[in-house]
Amino acid sequence: MFTTVERTARGVRVLDQRKLPLEEVYAELETAEQVADAIRSLTVRGAPAIGVAAAFGVALEATLASDLDAEAFDRKLEQAAATIGAARPTAVNLSWAVGRMLAEAARARAAGLDPRGIAASLEDEALRIRDEDLDACRRIGRHGAELVPGRATILTHCNAGGLATAGYGTALGVVRAAREAGKKVRVLAGETRPLLQGARLTAWELLRDGIETTLITDGMAGSILRRGEIDLVVVGADRIAANGDVANKIGTYPLAVLADAHRVPFYVAAPLSTVDPACADGDRIPIEERDPSEVTEVLGARIAPRGIVARNPAFDVTPARYVTAIVTERGIARPPYTRSLRALLAAAVPP
Amino acid sequence: MFTTVERTARGVRVLDQRKLPLEEVYAELETAEQVADAIRSLTVRGAPAIGVAAAFGVALEATLASDLDAEAFDRKLEQAAATIGAARPTAVNLSWAVGRMLAEAARARAAGLDPRGIAASLEDEALRIRDEDLDACRRIGRHGAELVPGRATILTHCNAGGLATAGYGTALGVVRAAREAGKKVRVLAGETRPLLQGARLTAWELLRDGIETTLITDGMAGSILRRGEIDLVVVGADRIAANGDVANKIGTYPLAVLADAHRVPFYVAAPLSTVDPACADGDRIPIEERDPSEVTEVLGARIAPRGIVARNPAFDVTPARYVTAIVTERGIARPPYTRSLRALLAAAVPP
Repeated sequence: MFTTVERTARGVRVLDQRKLPLEEVYAELETAEQVADAIRSLTVRGAPAIGVAAAFGVALEATLASDLDAEAFDRKLEQAAATIGAARPTAVNLSWAVGRMLAEAARARAAGLDPRGIAASLEDEALRIRDEDLDACRRIGRHGAELVPGRATILTHCNAGGLATAGYGTALGVVRAAREAGKKVRVLAGETRPLLQGARLTAWELLRDGIETTLITDGMAGSILRRGEIDLVVVGADRIAANGDVANKIGTYPLAVLADAHRVPFYVAAPLSTVDPACADGDRIPIEERDPSEVTEVLGARIAPRGIVARNPAFDVTPARYVTAIVTERGIARPPYTRSLRALLAAAVPP
Repeated sequence: MFTTVERTARGVRVLDQRKLPLEEVYAELETAEQVADAIRSLTVRGAPAIGVAAAFGVALEATLASDLDAEAFDRKLEQAAATIGAARPTAVNLSWAVGRMLAEAARARAAGLDPRGIAASLEDEALRIRDEDLDACRRIGRHGAELVPGRATILTHCNAGGLATAGYGTALGVVRAAREAGKKVRVLAGETRPLLQGARLTAWELLRDGIETTLITDGMAGSILRRGEIDLVVVGADRIAANGDVANKIGTYPLAVLADAHRVPFYVAAPLSTVDPACADGDRIPIEERDPSEVTEVLGARIAPRGIVARNPAFDVTPARYVTAIVTERGIARPPYTRSLRALLAAAVPP
């Protein structure tokens, strides 16, 4: 198995996802700034995974600063939180994780702990965030597996797998749990241009798990749905608005519309940390625009004429009406989502 | 300007579309077999352009064989027609052009011509096919331009441009004619994985023409349509069934469904040689499956893990109910297409 992100003695170690599947190398990040860079450059990516990386990054910086006086320590901590929190705009897990870390620091400070004590409590909190994410993925998988027929071809997009989380995955967690429950599952993986997370990452991790997987380009899903070959679609999410609108990797919305046109269920699998109750609907979710060179180049090789203008929104928004259900660690939310998501968020203990 | 395909003293000269946009080189094809290879390898591609290349290839082989006795000449001609006609299965223009060449040979033979005379008449017929295609594109452009508002953002897919025809283009002919009519047009070009004809070819030829063009990945069209930024979609076709179902480059069908979901008109621009009256509906159109390496590699570089299975249907079928209108050289067909296409095919003279 691989480890997407972990805290080591030296810093934060992440599997470098820019290099997969050709090379399996790890990057060792030694400052909060390096963690922010790794998030920006997609060395580590996937909404839950960047939440975990962010928590480790804040803890790392706290530990590095724990010999300073309380005031200097607080400044360092705030700076680290701000830098990491601003690394990417769309996935809410990033600000959620940073917010949780700052709340923990405040608690520890209020309890009278000194910088060393606060840093230690932040290291613990980051590990808890990591452990909770892994646990949430397994619960999401178990809930989601109930939605999978005994024999199913499952279409997914981008990578919402072990590589996008602390492990196991959200959308791919559903696939894994369905298989563990004895179901016969096959996956169709959309390659997910521009950065090919489906071809590079989903194909890689499913192949390692021995799950039957077929790679397609993003434009092929429509005709395969039309031929009735797909039983369900399951994707992850970068942010879910209070009304159930879902921001996810660019190319998700077309799949939702096509699934609807062919009466195929379209599921979103994500931990509740992805739900942003402060965001009323999808139109208020900030959509990251990335460098156009990601479109005009593939793996560094130019595919378009010089001088061409390209657009590169990294995410799109799928309106809630196209979402059959949202699978969370606390159970399955169904429309109307404003109510069902609020109820799940309010539930204190996972069932 | 470039010349997509032409008959030279030596053979058939085609602009090598596998090498665009990085290199602008021509390939000189000296036998019917080489013409068939060039069609198979997509050195020359685009339904109308491969029809023209096929006609030139048959004429070339006839001229090469024109010193043989009548029986040997006929055998060579039949062989050339069979080889070229079988090079690719989906675009009906290929068998249409080869059929027209064989009919011309039969006419010349019945008129008492010897192999040299037949070969000369075939060279003339091939030039007529080329000239008619160029003329058809200009007429398609003029008819289609009437559908374009005075200020329009036009989404297209793959390349249905000068590179896909004897020149000017079908879908891009509509864009060019709209601009010539003084309209302010902008193009959104879908890159069209796996072979990136949008990024490599459409972007290249529109940039040369100074038409404002923005490149997007195939998965971006949905959210851009959702934002109301697209006024119409126009694509070419590889084969149109009698009922108006349209086979075109993989990824076309999703655009049609998305255009429908957003009430944006979806137009198909194609010469009547693309209509196959013998094909009752789209489900009877043979869909070429190409090598999976076109999906697992981009420009020869591997993007997916070794061992992954990939699919590669080169075309999809868009049911007629999603097609707002079909723009031909003899005018615009509207639903129900069985009637409107039959009427256009029966019209003897272009209006």
